[in-house]
Amino acid sequence: MALALRPLLLTMGDPVGIGPEIVVRAFQRGAAEGCVIVGDVAVIARAIAAIGWSAAVARLDSPQQAVPAGSVPVWAPFQSDVDLSQLPWGQVDGRAGQAAADCVFAAARAVLDGQGSALVTAPLHKAALAAAGIQFPGHTEMLQALAGGVPVRMMLANDELRVVLVTIHQSLRSAIDAVTYDAVLETLRIVQRSGVGRRIAVAGLNPHAGEDGLFGDEEQRFIAPAIAAARAAGIDASGPFAPDTVFMRARRGEFDVVVAMTHDHGLIPVKYLGVEQGVNVTLGLPFVRTSPDHGTAFDIAGRGVADPSSLEAAIRWARRALSTG
Amino acid sequence: MALALRPLLLTMGDPVGIGPEIVVRAFQRGAAEGCVIVGDVAVIARAIAAIGWSAAVARLDSPQQAVPAGSVPVWAPFQSDVDLSQLPWGQVDGRAGQAAADCVFAAARAVLDGQGSALVTAPLHKAALAAAGIQFPGHTEMLQALAGGVPVRMMLANDELRVVLVTIHQSLRSAIDAVTYDAVLETLRIVQRSGVGRRIAVAGLNPHAGEDGLFGDEEQRFIAPAIAAARAAGIDASGPFAPDTVFMRARRGEFDVVVAMTHDHGLIPVKYLGVEQGVNVTLGLPFVRTSPDHGTAFDIAGRGVADPSSLEAAIRWARRALSTG
Repeated sequence: MALALRPLLLTMGDPVGIGPEIVVRAFQRGAAEGCVIVGDVAVIARAIAAIGWSAAVARLDSPQQAVPAGSVPVWAPFQSDVDLSQLPWGQVDGRAGQAAADCVFAAARAVLDGQGSALVTAPLHKAALAAAGIQFPGHTEMLQALAGGVPVRMMLANDELRVVLVTIHQSLRSAIDAVTYDAVLETLRIVQRSGVGRRIAVAGLNPHAGEDGLFGDEEQRFIAPAIAAARAAGIDASGPFAPDTVFMRARRGEFDVVVAMTHDHGLIPVKYLGVEQGVNVTLGLPFVRTSPDHGTAFDIAGRGVADPSSLEAAIRWARRALSTG
Repeated sequence: MALALRPLLLTMGDPVGIGPEIVVRAFQRGAAEGCVIVGDVAVIARAIAAIGWSAAVARLDSPQQAVPAGSVPVWAPFQSDVDLSQLPWGQVDGRAGQAAADCVFAAARAVLDGQGSALVTAPLHKAALAAAGIQFPGHTEMLQALAGGVPVRMMLANDELRVVLVTIHQSLRSAIDAVTYDAVLETLRIVQRSGVGRRIAVAGLNPHAGEDGLFGDEEQRFIAPAIAAARAAGIDASGPFAPDTVFMRARRGEFDVVVAMTHDHGLIPVKYLGVEQGVNVTLGLPFVRTSPDHGTAFDIAGRGVADPSSLEAAIRWARRALSTG
């Protein structure tokens, strides 16, 4: 039997969060054609029941195995010691966190090995990862380690704004220390190589981008010199601009992508109009990786009401990146 | 001759910025009926010419003097040594900064003395203030000093979001140090007394509001205890919430007003959809004070193209506050 085309791999996320149900909902809505879930068969079967659907699960032994028509394909790269589908919805559990992480690692390795075309990940729960003894706060750091520590950056994107973050999951105080010349310049290089936008605006760190040093000097010491170096290397970067207006300017079309110094400078505007269509893209990896820009939503997990729109947007983004990359 | 009703006082802002022209544009569009400009007569005459209008300027000796029908009333509380209307548009000048500041001080004193009902201020330029040797970075700090150092907070508001800031014009690094229990609790008290909204959401400082201490502990040490104290005092405050989603939640109607720890956490979402309708309100003063939420726009000053919408929204807000306050 011929191997299937390299499928797009879709991890289930934390088994007791909304991940499994948005993944199967995307199949139900026809938005995941040709994708293969990387997860646990019983967890996916429970999710199918949770959304009131009746599709059959096809258990695959490898990502490229042919899939029976009309079934939901699940490649289960591991066998959990526990029946994960018996864990209560929406409660932090280290066993759930371990299984979710195992799926991410297995899926990423499969993509690196050429068995999958790209990776789309459903949400993890940080406390569940921590409960499993996993030291990574999230996907981005995990995938970076798996890819040998290459520098990566998180991009959040929706239909009107693309934002790339210099720092992410750390205290604001430590993030300020991490805004260095090297970090900003590396971000600009990654943005250019990724091809997600030519006109790159760089937001400042301080109010009014430091107001000529009155309100902080990181712009003068690190950010402006990094922009100058990037420009000298042919990158169309500009700034540093006042954080409070640069996102509005990008939304209006003045820039293609904004580089933000901190997690919340960048994510507040991306999420302001609603998170349903937001996509998280990891730039810098040797493969395409996207995810929805929301979390596990433990408060509504298992009720079949979770909105798969952001996951579906993540699938669309990955397909578009594969077709143009 | 009977005194006029106490007029709303409208400062001209920096004479070489867009302040004078948006002020007279508001009169031209009928949005400033019953207001009196606090400024320089020649500067206002130049602004009238800049917008291609032909109204007469009425020079008033006091704010409550009767105004000839159809004229633009200007109370000039000082006489500048220099003809301010000869200064070039859009260039930082200490004489312009001094005159702009003098107008703010005179107008505020007049309101405190009962000669004006409220204060609406056109934009100042910080570098021009500094060039004049004025130590205040902006209106808020100036008015606070004039009112005897009462604690004040800046609120930015548009049709869909109201945000109050714990810290404003300082480096992000020093702002973190300024996020204390006292500062947060005082903010919540000021918001409640001001009556700008009952359901107060408090944004965290760190990504994910600190993620239970993983990404910073200011939420646990200062913000959450201040919220608890406010609640014990009958204030309907909640949080701390993740900064990246709380503004979206408020926009959707879950909260009436959001307290943000830093300048840009708060202003990014307020400005994201465009600054034309934004209003800056100083809470905590013994009088109503509003302003547009944009700056002097030196790059377009004098060309007659500046949009008065935000100033007009500031006038509307002040009138509404007077009628309900």
